[in-house]
Amino acid sequence: MHFKLAFIGFGVVGQGLTEILMEKKDWLAKKYDFHYTIVAISDIMKGSIYDKNGLDMAKILDLVKKGKKLDGYPTGVKGMDSLATISKTNADTIIEVTFTDVKTGEPALTHIKAALDAGKNVVSTNKGPVVKQAVELVDMAAANNAHYGFEGVVLAGTPVLNLAKYTLAGNKISGFKGILNGTTNYILTRMEEGMSYDDALKKAQELGYAEADPTGDVEGLDALGKVVILSNVVLGKNLSWENVERKGITEITGEDVMKAKAEGKRWKLIGSAEIQPDGSVKAKVWPEKLSLSDPLAGVCEAINALTYHTDELGSITIIGPGAGRRETGFSLLIDLLEINRKSNG
Amino acid sequence: MHFKLAFIGFGVVGQGLTEILMEKKDWLAKKYDFHYTIVAISDIMKGSIYDKNGLDMAKILDLVKKGKKLDGYPTGVKGMDSLATISKTNADTIIEVTFTDVKTGEPALTHIKAALDAGKNVVSTNKGPVVKQAVELVDMAAANNAHYGFEGVVLAGTPVLNLAKYTLAGNKISGFKGILNGTTNYILTRMEEGMSYDDALKKAQELGYAEADPTGDVEGLDALGKVVILSNVVLGKNLSWENVERKGITEITGEDVMKAKAEGKRWKLIGSAEIQPDGSVKAKVWPEKLSLSDPLAGVCEAINALTYHTDELGSITIIGPGAGRRETGFSLLIDLLEINRKSNG
Repeated sequence: MHFKLAFIGFGVVGQGLTEILMEKKDWLAKKYDFHYTIVAISDIMKGSIYDKNGLDMAKILDLVKKGKKLDGYPTGVKGMDSLATISKTNADTIIEVTFTDVKTGEPALTHIKAALDAGKNVVSTNKGPVVKQAVELVDMAAANNAHYGFEGVVLAGTPVLNLAKYTLAGNKISGFKGILNGTTNYILTRMEEGMSYDDALKKAQELGYAEADPTGDVEGLDALGKVVILSNVVLGKNLSWENVERKGITEITGEDVMKAKAEGKRWKLIGSAEIQPDGSVKAKVWPEKLSLSDPLAGVCEAINALTYHTDELGSITIIGPGAGRRETGFSLLIDLLEINRKSNG
Repeated sequence: MHFKLAFIGFGVVGQGLTEILMEKKDWLAKKYDFHYTIVAISDIMKGSIYDKNGLDMAKILDLVKKGKKLDGYPTGVKGMDSLATISKTNADTIIEVTFTDVKTGEPALTHIKAALDAGKNVVSTNKGPVVKQAVELVDMAAANNAHYGFEGVVLAGTPVLNLAKYTLAGNKISGFKGILNGTTNYILTRMEEGMSYDDALKKAQELGYAEADPTGDVEGLDALGKVVILSNVVLGKNLSWENVERKGITEITGEDVMKAKAEGKRWKLIGSAEIQPDGSVKAKVWPEKLSLSDPLAGVCEAINALTYHTDELGSITIIGPGAGRRETGFSLLIDLLEINRKSNG
């Protein structure tokens, strides 16, 4: 397939994908019969540029890295807003990577609906729309003969959704448990080495893992969003935020961590959900003291992991990065390659 | 797609797949638009049966479980040998699960070639043909517009090949390391609990993990075959048995295991290969003392695991079962579902 791509939003994730696409252009063409032209970019801060014949992305990245606006690009149509870029350009696939409120899902939700409504594919790393209405959006994509890809919303480029959908096809998945937040796992790893919670958090902030306000990570809210997504997309349920029991890691003391170590165990913040005999789902984010023979116990640093419970294979665990500029950008390529496979047949 | 399936060989793996297909018939049809009729079985011990309109598999399993020959089936054509069953029936997809010599690849290799030559798909759990000439067989399948699937040859139903091909698509994979043999991992797990090597081996034999002659497992030969397969299929190299350095676990003493435990480490038998700067590949099967922060260190009992080294995501590890009657039967369904996806488009 030859994609005509438009970026809605062009922050670090979009730039990360652009670098991958540029570096791997020939290899992707040869190995996957995957071809692309980037025809438009619309970013609320950086401005907007459209050329139906394609943009010179080296020039674009150069402008952006110098902190300049896209108006500085020598040719093309300037000033189209995001909705015009979605519906009035020749792009067939929209890369939705705007800065979006995770609770309301906006503005990503509006962009995704506009694109699907126009019969265009969308790939997006925004969690909000998936938490809010994954099932409706997937149905809307199918009804419009388009594709809505969102691999990156759970563990960035570690392909947990693709794994469930394709690689584990034929299994019935009854539940999962995972280390779904890298910041808290990093903090717990440092604490086991003797660092205090406060120092470990500070170190995580220095490394860019944790925000200045770390509440979303340490109180388990980030992991909770991922539990909701996995419950709805993989288990086929219909959870929302308030259906998930939650406790973060702020009450775990250095003493607790050392006591576990002496017992041959390890504290981890675990996000889990399990389908119950009555068909309901029990979901939570809670600190758990795991035995060192649990595959999740060996997952240290900012690395993430997810164990699926399947009927044919028992527990299947995947371990990989859960964040990062380039890794999250790469998750969009996973979605694009899925569209490409369907199109190439 | 509506498959017309023929079994060549009908031992525990073929029976395992049959049970899965029967139990999940309606679900597979609904969820994946996957339909099938089993039209023929040819087994060197159990005899052979063909009905172009399909066999009653409940009756077949009943005969087989009572130790009776397939001649006891009330209707259909009896006595066709494996090659006649492959080429002279209306089967479009051959399930090749004969008892095969892993060194020569026969008789599976002859069966696979005959099927591909007739433009029929083949799925097979036999390692020999893949070790010997995976690349040629995949090319032969492509040239005949057919599919050769062999997910089960590495870790049974844990889909390491499918993972590399689809779920990790877009990554360049430069190497791997894994726990590729369940028996040795089971023995090392028991030894860490204080059991002697001899007692742990005996226990593994009682549980059916190890053969009466355990050489293939404990000397690393089984893992070596999997290193060859992964090097050739995933890394695109052309290794054979003698290109892999090998050492088993027989020289690891209880004292070694306990010393590692005291250091916060664990012995594992690791199969690995890494592409070198000159393009060659360095492959080995060797006991390694892993830190407990290595994801492979947490993999205990008869469970297997594989870490791929990728350019975009760093290390990605998958953990799951590596053997078992039903798990290996299931690996054939993974291959069939891949054919089904391509066919349904």
